[in-house]
Amino acid sequence: MSAPHGPTVGDVSEGELLAHILAELSGASAAVVGPGDDAAVLAAPGERVVVTTDTLVHGPDFRLAWSSGHDLGFKSAAVNLADVAAMGARPTALFVALAMPADTTVAFVTELARGLRAACDLLAPGCAVEGGDLTASDTLTIAVTAVGVLEGRAPVLRSGARPGDVVAVAGSLGAAARGLAVLFDRFRDPDGFPVPVDLGVLDDASRADLVAQLRPEPPVGLGPVAAVAGATAMMDVSDGLLLDATRLADASGVTVDLRGIADGPQLRGGEDHALLAAFPEDAALPEGFRAIGRVRARGTAPVTVDGVPPAGPGGWDPLRDWDAVRG
Amino acid sequence: MSAPHGPTVGDVSEGELLAHILAELSGASAAVVGPGDDAAVLAAPGERVVVTTDTLVHGPDFRLAWSSGHDLGFKSAAVNLADVAAMGARPTALFVALAMPADTTVAFVTELARGLRAACDLLAPGCAVEGGDLTASDTLTIAVTAVGVLEGRAPVLRSGARPGDVVAVAGSLGAAARGLAVLFDRFRDPDGFPVPVDLGVLDDASRADLVAQLRPEPPVGLGPVAAVAGATAMMDVSDGLLLDATRLADASGVTVDLRGIADGPQLRGGEDHALLAAFPEDAALPEGFRAIGRVRARGTAPVTVDGVPPAGPGGWDPLRDWDAVRG
Repeated sequence: MSAPHGPTVGDVSEGELLAHILAELSGASAAVVGPGDDAAVLAAPGERVVVTTDTLVHGPDFRLAWSSGHDLGFKSAAVNLADVAAMGARPTALFVALAMPADTTVAFVTELARGLRAACDLLAPGCAVEGGDLTASDTLTIAVTAVGVLEGRAPVLRSGARPGDVVAVAGSLGAAARGLAVLFDRFRDPDGFPVPVDLGVLDDASRADLVAQLRPEPPVGLGPVAAVAGATAMMDVSDGLLLDATRLADASGVTVDLRGIADGPQLRGGEDHALLAAFPEDAALPEGFRAIGRVRARGTAPVTVDGVPPAGPGGWDPLRDWDAVRG
Repeated sequence: MSAPHGPTVGDVSEGELLAHILAELSGASAAVVGPGDDAAVLAAPGERVVVTTDTLVHGPDFRLAWSSGHDLGFKSAAVNLADVAAMGARPTALFVALAMPADTTVAFVTELARGLRAACDLLAPGCAVEGGDLTASDTLTIAVTAVGVLEGRAPVLRSGARPGDVVAVAGSLGAAARGLAVLFDRFRDPDGFPVPVDLGVLDDASRADLVAQLRPEPPVGLGPVAAVAGATAMMDVSDGLLLDATRLADASGVTVDLRGIADGPQLRGGEDHALLAAFPEDAALPEGFRAIGRVRARGTAPVTVDGVPPAGPGGWDPLRDWDAVRG
């Protein structure tokens, strides 16, 4: 995952850089009007659209020694696609605001565009990058906005869980956090600075965790499936199951009682972007979801594990917890 | 326009900062589902939406000595609202990804939210911030995505201008560029570094130009008006009339012949976000638009002024032209 060489974005015009990016995205657009005008025009069947935005910033969110351009493109798409899916919607378009230092290579940006496209093709077929913005910055920043369609379904909110509902999850819990630990433990120099990843030195489990951290594959297609199956509440697990289940419980005015979730990464680890949902007791869980608890009437704690409130902090706060020196 | 004091974003949690922001935005949402879930849900009457994104980055796009939080919120909204208007659409929602250093004051962020809201209220009533993202960064970055609705109208593209059309513009040409020159000429120290703006030392004309640079007020409401009046092509003038008219001419396969536009800021200055449109010869120009030329069959030059191709460069390229030292 060493940085590509060759010309930098400071060597080329915005138009030339855009041409490189558009070449990678070519043919993917399904929009009424795709990239190239003042704005894109998207179809909105059912007269409702879902919109969300999420940003990856060099430093708090990624390190270039650890993530390739392809990884970053893939991840920045995946985290937004998961948010669309968590509403029960099908993603149709991404908009990408890329701010980058002048010494960023054109090859890196091309790889990033390829990663965006790969994530759409794998996780949300029919979704494509339909617009964006390029600007100079001292800090590499990838701000992605995703748009999705509900196709006539009602959106699935965080606030709809009812006592008696089954709590279920689709996707991995804890792998991305274990992957982050692999990066910190195995790929830093003695001063704590990141060094390039070498997958070859890892065992299969660590390698899988690392890939889950660098290129998460949330179950985007299961969002609409859960909505059709009657999900009463849904969200994506971006900041850890404990913290996100707390948000769902607070929004719904209930307590979520998790069952058989050991303390550790699967309870507290973020960035998996699994889908957490509540289903009516009598609903058949869609394939891909597994039951991990029940919704109870609101008790003193928003979340319990096997009936007991977990001790300690809940998750990651990007503003308070980031230390630029420690990384 | 000195920086506000008090607690910084590093002193508070993401939830606390979000509460401050949401207090400023309170009551403005017109969405089906506003901020607070994984994604917002927006109405899309006519089953089509328009989406665009544009970013302001500290350094190339603004300086904190020159722009207040309110200015930045206002401008970051205005530039995106203009892009929506340029499609003939009515803006309905903004999504704001804010990446900021830990020493940014909470008061600055609150002012920024107030500026976003003020721009929506003034330029696009009914439009509101419906979602966003907060993250830590070494570089203050404001990435805004705007969504608009066509309400059954066809989008107005850059590519529809036809020979014989009248070329018209709504909004100012050159004021923002003259305002930038005021900043560079009057509000830098002997080493070239920005010093805080004092409006009191300026004459009325310079003050108006400066406000046009810091808080542009593009004619957003005239976008849909132009569409209804039959505009064949439209775009917003973000990089200067010459460069943007060239883009419109190239997209339409025509030559734009401007009349009576003197060389200087009104021909080459960017950031006014005026609306440039072509109308059929027999259409009545909507109030707010003024004729500035005619569309001709494609000649050797995409743009002529009184029949003569202008000499020299066309406009601003944010990647090639930004020099971090000179600012």
